[in-house]
Amino acid sequence: MVKREIFILKTGLTRCSRCGEDVEMAVYVDYMGRWLCKNCFIEFYEKKLRNTVLKYRMFSSRDLIGVAVSGGKDSMAMLTALSKVFPDLKIKAIHINLGIGDYSRDSENAVRRLCDQLGVELIIYDLKKHDGFSLPDLMKTAYRKRICGACGIIRRYLLNRIAWENGVRVVATGHTLDDTVELLFELYLNGRIEEIVRVKPVLEGGERLVKKVKPLIELTDQENKYYADFTETPYSEFECPLARGSRMLKRKELILRIEKEIPGFRHTFYKSHVKRFLPKLDGLIRRPELRACRNCGMPTIGDVCSYCKLVSKVLEVVKG
Amino acid sequence: MVKREIFILKTGLTRCSRCGEDVEMAVYVDYMGRWLCKNCFIEFYEKKLRNTVLKYRMFSSRDLIGVAVSGGKDSMAMLTALSKVFPDLKIKAIHINLGIGDYSRDSENAVRRLCDQLGVELIIYDLKKHDGFSLPDLMKTAYRKRICGACGIIRRYLLNRIAWENGVRVVATGHTLDDTVELLFELYLNGRIEEIVRVKPVLEGGERLVKKVKPLIELTDQENKYYADFTETPYSEFECPLARGSRMLKRKELILRIEKEIPGFRHTFYKSHVKRFLPKLDGLIRRPELRACRNCGMPTIGDVCSYCKLVSKVLEVVKG
Repeated sequence: MVKREIFILKTGLTRCSRCGEDVEMAVYVDYMGRWLCKNCFIEFYEKKLRNTVLKYRMFSSRDLIGVAVSGGKDSMAMLTALSKVFPDLKIKAIHINLGIGDYSRDSENAVRRLCDQLGVELIIYDLKKHDGFSLPDLMKTAYRKRICGACGIIRRYLLNRIAWENGVRVVATGHTLDDTVELLFELYLNGRIEEIVRVKPVLEGGERLVKKVKPLIELTDQENKYYADFTETPYSEFECPLARGSRMLKRKELILRIEKEIPGFRHTFYKSHVKRFLPKLDGLIRRPELRACRNCGMPTIGDVCSYCKLVSKVLEVVKG
Repeated sequence: MVKREIFILKTGLTRCSRCGEDVEMAVYVDYMGRWLCKNCFIEFYEKKLRNTVLKYRMFSSRDLIGVAVSGGKDSMAMLTALSKVFPDLKIKAIHINLGIGDYSRDSENAVRRLCDQLGVELIIYDLKKHDGFSLPDLMKTAYRKRICGACGIIRRYLLNRIAWENGVRVVATGHTLDDTVELLFELYLNGRIEEIVRVKPVLEGGERLVKKVKPLIELTDQENKYYADFTETPYSEFECPLARGSRMLKRKELILRIEKEIPGFRHTFYKSHVKRFLPKLDGLIRRPELRACRNCGMPTIGDVCSYCKLVSKVLEVVKG
C-alpha cells in the first residue's frame, strides 16, 4: 500500500483528548478543535457511523445491503466501517467503471483490493462494455458543460438498476457531510425547495426503486480520510480529471473557508436543515408520481427517464 | 463638508456603461461589474429605490411617513433620496441620540444638518434625558455581552413609540441588502424559522404598532455610500465604538468574501428568501398575539415588553 502523509501532527508527544494518553501520532478534528489518538479516532468514527445508521433506521444489522463504492476515500472508508461495525450485515459492493482512463482503472483496482481483503461480494459494472460509451464521450456532447451533473444521472440510475436486479433493496452511498452541505448551500441560496426536501439521510424506495441511505452524512471528508488511513483501507488517490476546477469543488473550498470563520458551520447548517426546515417544508411539497420509463421500465417522472435520454443522445454522437 | 476619498476610480477616462460617455469620475458597482458616471449612478439609485417602494406598496407618494435616521450613510442617503424621489411626501425624520460620546454627537449633528438642508421636520429623542440612561450604561449590566442586540430592542421600541405618538403610522428604516443578508445568513444557518418569516420589505402595523418599511432593502451598503457622496449628503463617518469587532460586522465581511466567490450572492439569496421561502414558510408560522405591556401600554408578546424589562434592569445598576 502506498504510504501517505496525511496527518496534521504535532511534533513530540500529544495528549489524546479522549483517552488522555500521550501519543506520538494524533489527528486534529477541525470542527471539534480536539486531538485524538489513532485508536480513539477509529472508535469515535465507528460510533458516529453506527449512531447515524441506527438514528435514521437505515437498515437492520442482518439485512442485505448494497454499498456503492467509487474507489475514493469516503465510500471505501464506509465499506470498511460498515463491515466492521455490523459484522452480520450481508453486503454486496457495487462499483461502476466509468471508463475515465487511469482514474477509473486505479479506482477499480482499489475496490477489488478492498473487497478481497474484507471478503465482500463485488459487482462491477463496466459502462463502456454494457452501454457502449464512457464518461469522456460526454465531452463531445452538450453534456460537457454539466459533466458532473450528467455523471450523477448515470451513477444514480445504474446504481438503482444494478442493485434492484441483484435483489438488493437498500443501497448505502458515500455522501459525506461536506457533500451534503455543499449541495444544501447551493439549493438554499437558489431557493430550490423541491430539491431541498430530497436531501435526507434516508430516501425511501418503491417499485423498482431501492431505498437509499447515507451512513456518512454526519461525517466530514477529513474524518473519512483519517479513518481510511488509520485502518489501512486501500483507496484511489486520483482525482477525477473531468471534475477538476468544477463548481462543486470550488464550493467545497468556500464552505471550508466559511467553517474557519464560523466553527461548526457544516454541522449547524446540516442540523438546521434536518431538524428545522425539513419537517416544515416536507409537507408542502407534493412528491411527483413515478411511472415506468417507456424504454427501460425503470421509475421516472416523465415518459422516458433521464438516463435513456442521455444514452440516446450520447450514442448518436459516439456512433457518429 | 468633509472631503472624502471613496470612489473606486479608474485612471484616465472611463466609459459609463449606462450613458456611454467618457468621464473623469465613475464608480464600480460590484455585483453588476459595471462602471457608472455620477449622474447615471444617481438616476440608477433613485430608480431602484422608487421601484422598491412601489413594488412592495410601502407608502403612497403623498403619505405622511417617519424616516428613522441614525446619522450614518445608509439612512441619510435614504432621507435624501426619499425627499427627492417623492417630493410630495410628508416626512418626519426621527433620530434617537443614544449617548455614545462623540459618535452620538457627530451623528446628531449630521442629522440636524441634513434635515436643515432638505427642510424636513426632525424629531430628536435623547435617551439619557428621557429615560435616565445611555447606551454605554448597558456595559455595566448583563446586556454587555449582546450590546448590539440590546441596542436593537431600544431603537425598535422607541422608534415605534415616538412615531406613534407623533401621529406617524408608517416608518422607513435604513436596512440595506447587506444588513438583510447578514441577518438571513444567521437565521437560515440556525434554522430560526419564526424569525426568518419576519424578515420582509414591509411589516404591517396594528394597534400602537406602526407599519415598518425598508426602502433600501434591495440596495447595497456600497450603493448607499456612493449615493450619499455623489449627492453631498452629510453623514457621520464615526463607527459605533460599542459595535467594533461585533459578530455582525464580521459576518458582513464574510458575506462580502462569499460574494467575491459567488457574484450576485446577496441578491440571489435575498430573492430566494422573498420569492421562494417566504411564501412557503409564512403560512406555517402562527403570528404571536400582541397585547399591551402592563407597564407602558405598547404592544408586546408577554406581560411586560422587552424595553420596560431592559430599562428596569439598567436603571437598577445606574442608580446603583
